[in-house]
Amino acid sequence: MFAFPTLHDITTAASRIEPWAHRTPIMTSSAIDAMAGNTLFFKCENFQKVGAFKFRGASNAVLSLSDDEAARGVATHSSGNHAQALALAARLRGIPAFIVMPSNAPAIKKAAVAGYGARIVECEPTLEARESTLDAVVGETGAAFVHPYNDPRVITGQATAAKELIEDVPDLDILMTPVGGGGLLSGSALSAFYLSSGTAVIAAEPEGADDAARSFRAGRIIPSENPRTIADGLLTSLGENTFAIIRAHVSDIVTVSDDAIIRAMRLVWERLKIVIEPSAAVPLAAILERKPDTDGKRVGIILSGGNLDLDRLPWQS
Amino acid sequence: MFAFPTLHDITTAASRIEPWAHRTPIMTSSAIDAMAGNTLFFKCENFQKVGAFKFRGASNAVLSLSDDEAARGVATHSSGNHAQALALAARLRGIPAFIVMPSNAPAIKKAAVAGYGARIVECEPTLEARESTLDAVVGETGAAFVHPYNDPRVITGQATAAKELIEDVPDLDILMTPVGGGGLLSGSALSAFYLSSGTAVIAAEPEGADDAARSFRAGRIIPSENPRTIADGLLTSLGENTFAIIRAHVSDIVTVSDDAIIRAMRLVWERLKIVIEPSAAVPLAAILERKPDTDGKRVGIILSGGNLDLDRLPWQS
Repeated sequence: MFAFPTLHDITTAASRIEPWAHRTPIMTSSAIDAMAGNTLFFKCENFQKVGAFKFRGASNAVLSLSDDEAARGVATHSSGNHAQALALAARLRGIPAFIVMPSNAPAIKKAAVAGYGARIVECEPTLEARESTLDAVVGETGAAFVHPYNDPRVITGQATAAKELIEDVPDLDILMTPVGGGGLLSGSALSAFYLSSGTAVIAAEPEGADDAARSFRAGRIIPSENPRTIADGLLTSLGENTFAIIRAHVSDIVTVSDDAIIRAMRLVWERLKIVIEPSAAVPLAAILERKPDTDGKRVGIILSGGNLDLDRLPWQS
Repeated sequence: MFAFPTLHDITTAASRIEPWAHRTPIMTSSAIDAMAGNTLFFKCENFQKVGAFKFRGASNAVLSLSDDEAARGVATHSSGNHAQALALAARLRGIPAFIVMPSNAPAIKKAAVAGYGARIVECEPTLEARESTLDAVVGETGAAFVHPYNDPRVITGQATAAKELIEDVPDLDILMTPVGGGGLLSGSALSAFYLSSGTAVIAAEPEGADDAARSFRAGRIIPSENPRTIADGLLTSLGENTFAIIRAHVSDIVTVSDDAIIRAMRLVWERLKIVIEPSAAVPLAAILERKPDTDGKRVGIILSGGNLDLDRLPWQS
């Protein structure tokens, strides 16, 4: 049985990653507040190392290893922000990172991971190939597998973003995050539970990848099948560990259309003058669509990241 | 004869606008530092009210007026950031703002100014029509004319951005700004002169609008003629007052191509995850092109603003 990370685990993670991770700022916009009818606090994880909250979990995992374990390196499968985050964390500790990526992953993503000094191991673009390739890498190298979201060290690391937000902005009525695999959501829910019991945690998810919302209502994990959304960081299904925490500590999961996500993303670019990726805009989209009732409330939003292809902005067809 | 604003003028302006203007943050990027071969400190005026440093000068001018003067309102000619800045400053003081704009100004810019409650007075798109229309507005209303850059109250207000940067980052070797009409540059040069005598002030200008660089070398104002550049905030010619300060206190003015400006702008978006307009990228472009020698130096850059059409990014043809 999976034991939920404790408050002590989260505070230990916060101390552990503090020399490596940015304490990201919180931004506000009176113009967006006027549109939303509430008071919003944006936690800017787009300014985090590698441009996403993922660095928190990856660095907590890397720093949790004993020297002997660390010497054999870390391994994961990912073509997204987690791959870059784990690669950078490994480089900072001076240990190898093995990243299994499908052979059809975009060259720009491979280059980013390689740029952090990680070794890329290509596999066929199937789930089976990914898992068997990862098993082979771990078997050969003895590297420690760091799952992108279901690993308790990762969940605990992601929890530190909400911990900082709660410290900087007391008396939040609602805390919102996007949800893909659930690492950020479950970690945020734990931080709110331990540190701000009056804060309700609500997740937002794209309609075209609504497996978390359906799982939440069904009470069991319903895997994501053929998800289609502009929010490409939210395509994965929940993990057993993240889902257990979400069932216990999340109030609701709402869904929004891609059109609403794109509008919210553009609004953040225009008003806050910051670059966020589509996944990061999902909670604001839900608020502007009046999906959860946030009227007159103090709402914290974790802007999950800012990595996207600037040559193909979603409002340009 | 124009008397240069004093240190006391600048500190008074800083206190005066402090309740209205944001003290903007300073950002850094180890990746950009590695490319530039120095240590860069970006003062984020894209996060200023109305998305540009212009709010500093406009609000200082509006707050400098006596109650009697203020009651008659303020007036200017501008279709850019100064128009929005003056409109917002006037609204905050609860006084009228009259903005003369050419009839062919983009609808989006008119809407932004009108959105701040200003009265737009249209004129033919010629210099003569602009000036005669402004004279007529001032004659009828008694409104105080606030020139976009040559007004000493505006210069003094713009000086507060460099003052904050110098306070937050001591021991700058170089301070860089873009130059259009010279309000930001002359104000920054005064702040550096009074508050950080070891800091050299260098301006950067687009090659296609290089009137300031040519004026600087010639020792007299050479007006801008048919300027062509992506940096649409830098099309104007220097004013008599800004030029006098620039001659006295600026070390150099360098020029860069639009291609270099676009590359630098994109680099800031990608690495700092913030939205800046082309004009704001001109100093970094000059550094990356090795125009001024900044090798190993501590360099402050004022990122002048973040207002641009997100439907037409300059790297997309």
